[in-house]
Amino acid sequence: MAGGSGTRFWPKSRQSLPKQLLPITGHESMIQNTFGRLRGLVPPSRVWVISAADHVVSIRKQIPQLSRAHVIGEPCARNTAACVALAAFLMQQEPESVMFVLPADHVIRDRRQFRRSLEVAAQLAVQFDALVTFGIEPTFAATGYGYLELEGKQARINGVSYCRVRRFVEKPDRSTAKSYVSSGNFLWNGGMFAWKVGRILDSFRKYMPETYHSLSRIDWTHPKTAHRALARVYPKLQSTSVDYGIMEKADNVYAVRATFDWSDVGSWDAAAAFFSRDAAGNASRSKLIAVDSEGLIVDAGNKLVATVGVDNLIIIDAGDALLVCAKSRAQDVKQIVDRLKAGELCRYL
Amino acid sequence: MAGGSGTRFWPKSRQSLPKQLLPITGHESMIQNTFGRLRGLVPPSRVWVISAADHVVSIRKQIPQLSRAHVIGEPCARNTAACVALAAFLMQQEPESVMFVLPADHVIRDRRQFRRSLEVAAQLAVQFDALVTFGIEPTFAATGYGYLELEGKQARINGVSYCRVRRFVEKPDRSTAKSYVSSGNFLWNGGMFAWKVGRILDSFRKYMPETYHSLSRIDWTHPKTAHRALARVYPKLQSTSVDYGIMEKADNVYAVRATFDWSDVGSWDAAAAFFSRDAAGNASRSKLIAVDSEGLIVDAGNKLVATVGVDNLIIIDAGDALLVCAKSRAQDVKQIVDRLKAGELCRYL
Repeated sequence: MAGGSGTRFWPKSRQSLPKQLLPITGHESMIQNTFGRLRGLVPPSRVWVISAADHVVSIRKQIPQLSRAHVIGEPCARNTAACVALAAFLMQQEPESVMFVLPADHVIRDRRQFRRSLEVAAQLAVQFDALVTFGIEPTFAATGYGYLELEGKQARINGVSYCRVRRFVEKPDRSTAKSYVSSGNFLWNGGMFAWKVGRILDSFRKYMPETYHSLSRIDWTHPKTAHRALARVYPKLQSTSVDYGIMEKADNVYAVRATFDWSDVGSWDAAAAFFSRDAAGNASRSKLIAVDSEGLIVDAGNKLVATVGVDNLIIIDAGDALLVCAKSRAQDVKQIVDRLKAGELCRYL
Repeated sequence: MAGGSGTRFWPKSRQSLPKQLLPITGHESMIQNTFGRLRGLVPPSRVWVISAADHVVSIRKQIPQLSRAHVIGEPCARNTAACVALAAFLMQQEPESVMFVLPADHVIRDRRQFRRSLEVAAQLAVQFDALVTFGIEPTFAATGYGYLELEGKQARINGVSYCRVRRFVEKPDRSTAKSYVSSGNFLWNGGMFAWKVGRILDSFRKYMPETYHSLSRIDWTHPKTAHRALARVYPKLQSTSVDYGIMEKADNVYAVRATFDWSDVGSWDAAAAFFSRDAAGNASRSKLIAVDSEGLIVDAGNKLVATVGVDNLIIIDAGDALLVCAKSRAQDVKQIVDRLKAGELCRYL
């Protein structure tokens, strides 16, 4: 899943170059990193990417190993449920195969543990014909993530714990989040899934029948015809998340407890965890001379950045545009993007 | 006088491109603007520029109207007294001519009033064989400027007031500065002068005899010989200001009261007075989108600058280097330059 525009990473992320196509945390782009993470587990010929139509060319360039026919541009953004349904129909010839659903913009560095978790998830998907999700051990009472409530006893395969899921819950308020975390019975919803192709198609038929029937009427055997039909059908699909549309309603849901590190890198603050850090807590990907400055987050490419007497700023240079933002206001970078849209500065979007 | 390195304008000003060669406040560089200000008063063929040797080529490029032989590179920096003495010796064939001494890095926008003041100063220089300085009406109790104490009654020529000067005083402390300003009898020392060539040469002979004799031994009729001799002699000259070396000791000093606007643009704060300003008091020379931001000073060339929730910052982008500095710390930009020298980042100097 490589949709999404990542306005929170403006000015690095642009309409033509969203977060997943950028090297936000390292030298590779996030989608290159996601693809590389599957090495040894899923052969490149069996990887599909669903993205916005505008990004298909860039993705093919960034990952030349992908089959051209496997990089699919959505006619418009319709959230994750439509994206997953589209992918499942593309694979419908193999109903017994296991399909992993992975966002292209997460950071996971422990590839070995990641692959081990995926293997266990695949095994559960086959053994129990389950919808399998990946639960992330909460490290704080996050209000920005959905949670999974666990049910019954945990079991283990090959050192990886798993459990049935009682329910999916939406982003909670602070006090609810606290109670979830202290109970020990909740995990963050990592937004990654494993299931048999046939099982998720059945789930769409049951829980999102309109989406299912719209897509099932398409003749998928002829790519050109399918492409034209999709352009007509896709904009009318229900725009909802797979969590809300399927997982919250489904039974027989399992969670694998992730043993790998995980970050959805939702803001510069989160990205800065991957930058090098000086003694004053300044996180920078560029040469930084910080005089009496603390808690900065800096990415200005090859540019030298010098600061005097400033604290807790996000300083991001993207060549034609520069952002200087109070760290506490990181979520409001969206306001800049809104103003660019409202004004005549569309070329900076 | 086009010496000086202007480290306070780093990263725009560099060793190879000091403040006077930069368009700090407008579209022309400060030296181009200073040259242009003399139009109609001093023909280009009678303008001389004394600068650091490194900047001679740039100055000739910026002001092609100047005679090549009139752009003189100092072998090393020796403050303003040596610079003025050098200039006076270059003009010694015309002892009765009036010589204006003008720093190349001041902003004066009212050219008409400026020229009128210079005409009056020239008249005083001839009529009284005086050393004439330009006094600036103080607008606040500045501790960064020297002051002129006036003596006796003011007189007027052509709408311009002038007066004898009792004494030159160095940069005062805050309370002394306040008493000067409230007395009404003090003006800022604008660092510009007018005198007959013969009169200033006599003054050097009297008050800085070593400088005078070192330079008088040079054969100025042969430029190449003079250049070689200067390279030998100049580094040994006393390094002091013309204010301290001559003006504080001389008698028969007059001040013309400037009727023109004046700024020595000593910092980004001063330069920002010439930038366009929005309702929140943000002064910018670049496209600026300021969300909940106040009191910014921004110059990032053609780059779009966007800010969220930040106050009273100086944000300067110079292509290969970016400065973000608390306004109250503007004087400490020098610390950055010192660190660049100490480290291995000389290319940013």
